Amino acid sequence: MINSVPSDSVGIIKPKEFHFDNPLELASGRQLPFFDLIVETYGELNVNKSNAVLVCHALSGDHHAAGYHAANDRKAGWWDACIGPGKAIDTDLFFVVSLNNIGGCSGSTGPTSTNPETGKYYGPDFPVVTVKDWVNTQFILMKRLEIPKWAAVIGGSLGGMQAIQWAISYSEKLHSAICIAGAPKLSAQNIAFNEVARQSITSDPNFFEGRYLEKNTSPKKGLTLARMVGHITYLSDNAMRLKFGKTVMDFEKEGNNFGRDLRSGKLSFGFNVDFQVESYLHYQGERFSENFDANTYLLMTKALDYFDPSVDYGGDLSRGFSESNCDFLLISFSTDWRFPPERSREIVEDLLKTNKEVTYLEIEADQGHDAFLLPIPRYVAALKSYLNRIYNEITTNAS
Amino acid sequence: MINSVPSDSVGIIKPKEFHFDNPLELASGRQLPFFDLIVETYGELNVNKSNAVLVCHALSGDHHAAGYHAANDRKAGWWDACIGPGKAIDTDLFFVVSLNNIGGCSGSTGPTSTNPETGKYYGPDFPVVTVKDWVNTQFILMKRLEIPKWAAVIGGSLGGMQAIQWAISYSEKLHSAICIAGAPKLSAQNIAFNEVARQSITSDPNFFEGRYLEKNTSPKKGLTLARMVGHITYLSDNAMRLKFGKTVMDFEKEGNNFGRDLRSGKLSFGFNVDFQVESYLHYQGERFSENFDANTYLLMTKALDYFDPSVDYGGDLSRGFSESNCDFLLISFSTDWRFPPERSREIVEDLLKTNKEVTYLEIEADQGHDAFLLPIPRYVAALKSYLNRIYNEITTNAS
Repeated sequence: MINSVPSDSVGIIKPKEFHFDNPLELASGRQLPFFDLIVETYGELNVNKSNAVLVCHALSGDHHAAGYHAANDRKAGWWDACIGPGKAIDTDLFFVVSLNNIGGCSGSTGPTSTNPETGKYYGPDFPVVTVKDWVNTQFILMKRLEIPKWAAVIGGSLGGMQAIQWAISYSEKLHSAICIAGAPKLSAQNIAFNEVARQSITSDPNFFEGRYLEKNTSPKKGLTLARMVGHITYLSDNAMRLKFGKTVMDFEKEGNNFGRDLRSGKLSFGFNVDFQVESYLHYQGERFSENFDANTYLLMTKALDYFDPSVDYGGDLSRGFSESNCDFLLISFSTDWRFPPERSREIVEDLLKTNKEVTYLEIEADQGHDAFLLPIPRYVAALKSYLNRIYNEITTNAS
Repeated sequence: MINSVPSDSVGIIKPKEFHFDNPLELASGRQLPFFDLIVETYGELNVNKSNAVLVCHALSGDHHAAGYHAANDRKAGWWDACIGPGKAIDTDLFFVVSLNNIGGCSGSTGPTSTNPETGKYYGPDFPVVTVKDWVNTQFILMKRLEIPKWAAVIGGSLGGMQAIQWAISYSEKLHSAICIAGAPKLSAQNIAFNEVARQSITSDPNFFEGRYLEKNTSPKKGLTLARMVGHITYLSDNAMRLKFGKTVMDFEKEGNNFGRDLRSGKLSFGFNVDFQVESYLHYQGERFSENFDANTYLLMTKALDYFDPSVDYGGDLSRGFSESNCDFLLISFSTDWRFPPERSREIVEDLLKTNKEVTYLEIEADQGHDAFLLPIPRYVAALKSYLNRIYNEITTNAS
């Protein structure tokens, strides 16, 4: 292994592409004539093919969940904190499958792919996709990989919603559904923030009704703004106070100044960036806008808004779970205000109502919604111990 | 009185303009050569001139706090719920003074006024103003009105911050400071939301670096977006669930569907507005953008960000209050997440540390930050009883 890759990393990873020739029917009533999925896998599939774990990504994630694409990569995959040898999702035990969902912009068929009908980019003509559509494509991928049953389907945020949908749509095909920092559906406030993000993008003069790639441009300012709004909802007020309040004034007040550190030591009395928090959000937003497709962002926010597995059951999610025979693990974080602990407890309640096996863990953490991506000791230890138990069950039974 | 005006209204009101010829030194180091304030008053000043109450407005408010400008007005002033004969701020007892602050866009000198140096609109050349600057102009207005001491200075949100600043800057000039739904200073999260709002405005192609009025246009889309973001922070998640979740699905789940009412009964599978909450925010944002100046919005958000009266006291606000000899009333609302109850309690703590008279009230209310504008019975009753006590004190003593 190359020196620069840490020893608890899955190492250098090469994504694989899978092509699917059959038309895919979507929840919208539209169809994709064919589609590609880009996939990474970590660890080895065992002889019984019983140790496979499906990792589902959130709004801005992709297939690159762990390891590196090259030895000189600055950053590892988005969930490297939890996936690797000896880590919570232990690649010494599990065969981990991570894909980019359709509608994405990292290699799976999406708005940046060529529309076979026009020979141009799909762009805004790519159909609106739902969590159910994704789970259907993940099931098609599962068959291609000849995996009979997932040891676990796992994800955080929008990824956790996919785990919930799996437990409803293909309950017999997974041993355990693990939903971290999720929600049974978005509230009006969640939807409102998503709509602000969409408006930011579509109001950008470089959006060109979604056909910006044909004009060799992109709505970077709008996407930056959308990401800035999103980013605020990923961090807790407390996390921001800690992150941007390092300067302690001469009167020490609980160790920080409310996150009001200035960028240049004094106020500008103009409309430039005054505070570190502004500078940080600009930087994060701009970096994101250079690497992500605006149409994909629109699609992901709609998938979030539309997710409501209770709709098929007259609003009663517990009825949706009634046929589920998998285990459930739900984890939430105390300062997450995007999908607070109450939202996970709503899912727990619906599971208990229909007498399901459910483990629920509420982690004290300052980091808000983003906590699910971070190596928070109690969280990682609990996830690891739960998954190790699953591993023992699947390898002792041949279920 | 005209039939259409309710009997507990202050009636039809005519604003008054005051011109101030002396240059005004600002916190930024810049100066205004002269300035105008537009003012409304309700009720009668008593012989001792002891019954005057100053009302300070918040981000998007103005001098028109109560009553109507014409009999056919659709809406009363912004704080009509609390100002009027027999209301909390009882105009049968008090002489109420309400002004538009400088930097505003409703008649006081601001970015839409003519810059005497250029003969054009001030626009982006209007100086950044602070809460302290406003309090200074309010003090100048007080002298012009020959009011020796305010019975109370009162405001909600940014208005409450002005009341706090009065208690520090001109403590001997007010009997009581009333700060509702306020904060001692903004946190990093508050600043972050303001920066998103500013970016929305300045990214609009019709912003023209602030000189849009010269081009006879305005950045309406950007201002709409800014207001949408703001509006989300004014409402609680719960308020939104109640407001936009009227449709109960056939399985009744705590009476609503998380605020997920659809606009047209079904999902569009496109990027149109699907949910009522989106439609509402668009409507509110667009209406606002037709009646408010974008440069003023920028100035108001900076005044919020910059407000930190503790800065002059090494970060210790209690030292700022040490010379204050007025009474204090602080009110917060349980579901306000813009300036939650903790923020008011921080002010209370600083007052207690320096042994001040302080009354603090935390009101259970679903409406979030906006609650301060609404006729919530316990809130209005408490405010009324506090102010009536003040009235008795000022009319029995001749202080």
